[in-house]
Amino acid sequence: MTLSAKAIADRGGVVRVGLLGCGHVGSALVRLAEANAASIEARAGVKVEVAKVAVRNLAKERDVDLDPGRFTHDADDVVADPSIDLVVEVIGGIEPARTLILSALAAGKPVVTANKELLANFGRELFETAEANGVDLLFEASVCGGIPLLRPLRESLAGDRIRRITGIVNGTTNFVLTRMTESGASFHEALAEAQTLGYAERDPTADVEGFDAAAKAAILASIAFGTKVVAGDVYHEGISGVSPSDIESARELGYVVKLLAIAEEVDEEIAVRVHPAMVPVNHPLAAVKDSFNAVFIEADAAGSLMFYGRGAGGMPTASAVLGDLIDAARNLAAGSRGATMGAPVKKRVRPIDEVASQFYVMAEVADRPGVLAAIASAFGEHGVSIKSMQQQGISEEERKNGDARLIFVTHKAKERDFEATMAAVRQLEPVHRVGSILRVVGEDE
Amino acid sequence: MTLSAKAIADRGGVVRVGLLGCGHVGSALVRLAEANAASIEARAGVKVEVAKVAVRNLAKERDVDLDPGRFTHDADDVVADPSIDLVVEVIGGIEPARTLILSALAAGKPVVTANKELLANFGRELFETAEANGVDLLFEASVCGGIPLLRPLRESLAGDRIRRITGIVNGTTNFVLTRMTESGASFHEALAEAQTLGYAERDPTADVEGFDAAAKAAILASIAFGTKVVAGDVYHEGISGVSPSDIESARELGYVVKLLAIAEEVDEEIAVRVHPAMVPVNHPLAAVKDSFNAVFIEADAAGSLMFYGRGAGGMPTASAVLGDLIDAARNLAAGSRGATMGAPVKKRVRPIDEVASQFYVMAEVADRPGVLAAIASAFGEHGVSIKSMQQQGISEEERKNGDARLIFVTHKAKERDFEATMAAVRQLEPVHRVGSILRVVGEDE
Repeated sequence: MTLSAKAIADRGGVVRVGLLGCGHVGSALVRLAEANAASIEARAGVKVEVAKVAVRNLAKERDVDLDPGRFTHDADDVVADPSIDLVVEVIGGIEPARTLILSALAAGKPVVTANKELLANFGRELFETAEANGVDLLFEASVCGGIPLLRPLRESLAGDRIRRITGIVNGTTNFVLTRMTESGASFHEALAEAQTLGYAERDPTADVEGFDAAAKAAILASIAFGTKVVAGDVYHEGISGVSPSDIESARELGYVVKLLAIAEEVDEEIAVRVHPAMVPVNHPLAAVKDSFNAVFIEADAAGSLMFYGRGAGGMPTASAVLGDLIDAARNLAAGSRGATMGAPVKKRVRPIDEVASQFYVMAEVADRPGVLAAIASAFGEHGVSIKSMQQQGISEEERKNGDARLIFVTHKAKERDFEATMAAVRQLEPVHRVGSILRVVGEDE
Repeated sequence: MTLSAKAIADRGGVVRVGLLGCGHVGSALVRLAEANAASIEARAGVKVEVAKVAVRNLAKERDVDLDPGRFTHDADDVVADPSIDLVVEVIGGIEPARTLILSALAAGKPVVTANKELLANFGRELFETAEANGVDLLFEASVCGGIPLLRPLRESLAGDRIRRITGIVNGTTNFVLTRMTESGASFHEALAEAQTLGYAERDPTADVEGFDAAAKAAILASIAFGTKVVAGDVYHEGISGVSPSDIESARELGYVVKLLAIAEEVDEEIAVRVHPAMVPVNHPLAAVKDSFNAVFIEADAAGSLMFYGRGAGGMPTASAVLGDLIDAARNLAAGSRGATMGAPVKKRVRPIDEVASQFYVMAEVADRPGVLAAIASAFGEHGVSIKSMQQQGISEEERKNGDARLIFVTHKAKERDFEATMAAVRQLEPVHRVGSILRVVGEDE
């Protein structure tokens, strides 16, 4: 029997938890653990007691039913307290969360965290410290809040081979794009609505420019492919450039526009990026609306899978944290451990230039013979194959001016080749303008 | 260190697996374990070796790369062999699977099974035997093949409270209903197509009459609500009575028809049933097409979740079995165990009479004043509240005959009250016929 298991048994099967942070997620966790105490004990085989809570502001009112004596300013003290068996970190951000978690792991205490930013940047350091000390480090809540996702990836699919993950992992941008699609609103109008409803922050940059999704993509890629991918490795574009006419064009062609995080393994390399994309309306991701998240997984044996739910919010996130906490508490009391990350396999992260996508592009051209041939040649010279071309409806005035609008969708082509193609197309005399360019994702090739 | 852990360590970290059955799933499992041997060893920390395989027909050709010496007729011998650490059962059916699994568990060997029928009828006996012997019994593959579902329910949501599970858990019937919806085919035409494509068996009764879905509903209800529900507790209706005009009416009203397995906890009781239902087109389940499965879960804290994927097939099922096998092998080598079922909480399974649903019903009536009032009174007298009523388009001839067709959708009402209402409505003189009745599921009340 391990020392921790003995201490827990001596206490009558009580696991003493140190909680770091008691904001939305932390207080929801305390309430949820209290409300479901009986079923948690039945499943974990032990009682889970939130014994100490570290907070920045002791004076703040909190909607939790805990003895005020359990609150402290001193997070280091919570981690160092020998009577604390297990640490839950819901402070967020890099420091002091990183140092606190490393200390807890070094002291042989399992850690449950919801910290996306930390995992996406220092995940490997944390996994290695957990491994070296033989303790659990669980982080289901760090990606897509309440959706069980990392556990299925790590455990249920452990014998399978994941090829690609395509996710709607940011609720704010999905809400904005849904509003733009359903009401024809502009990006700024839809964003303002999201802010009014509390779906977007005052400074929405991290969401709308794809930083948040990139961090989640890094974590997903690390887990799915057993390698090290950090947030900085992830190419990302946001949705601020998506226009109502892009969305309308997508609709006419049978697509919806979604902000996607994509991670795939191609020829032993990892390609991972975040960008808006056109998704076929009959693809399961197309039906994911409002602030919901969903992650579509393609695996060799299991085939296509999708996990759908609330990607954020205090209660959904607390549900995920508590699932991890019960798992870690049960393991600790049994003197065992859950699944580990294993040693990472070194794989090159492919630069975006080399990543292949299908592209949609609109070009405004002079409506005269030979134009299409000239454009098609430019595509052909750069090795980009055209899958479909169609002329888009234009106004009477444009027609009188002898203008036409052409829409191209390509087969898969490398970003570099497509960019070279666009540079060449822009040089063509009859091409007035190359309009929006969007990648197309989820189509059968 | 346990004896099993020591034996595995002495062998250099090899877990010897006894495989019972080597049909589609069994042979897919052997191939998958072989193909991903390196990553499995990295994740499990041990090698998984399929050491013995029990089959009925030794002479049969099998697409697996295993020494013929490992095959045997004698399943009892595989289970009893002291050098076999862990047993995987993919024979299916009640016997001999039940006796073999009980023997393996009694001998302290963890068991992984894909056996839906066995779990749905003798689950409690198996769980208790596993518990009494302190070994893992895992069965992810028994419900919805390759979709990670039971593990998230048991572990990720262990701290949450599940309120309702609504699933499309039978691929055959979902394929048939999708064809009927998309092509206007009749049930028999669509079923014939499903049979030609291999999605339906020669004798499709188990699928189309809802027996298969009922077994899955029993397992889901047992796991989600920590109680004992067996297949025989589950009320079920199949899809053979669903007509093209039901599907057309549903479409006109903004619904699609799906065969649903529903399990919910209401006032400390369990209501569980399988029947065709109208689902609003914007509900995530409505987008689940062809032979795909999906399970929609409503939990207190996590909110709405959905798990989507391939519910059947050799490879998807093998992926789920292998995920369980890796988990059990890792636990065994570490001398530990995974999450257990806990003691069941006794809860009454509510008879279908007492279960509340929303109903859709069509009535053909004489088109004259007072008819609607008479019907509405019949509803009111039995406490069934009408949510919406509309007149359906009819032919010129029907109109000349003075006929009308009325469509009613009710608020939630108990089956017993709704049936009494229909009996009364049928007695009304101006009512020529009460047509199709379908429950409506997934609508905001």
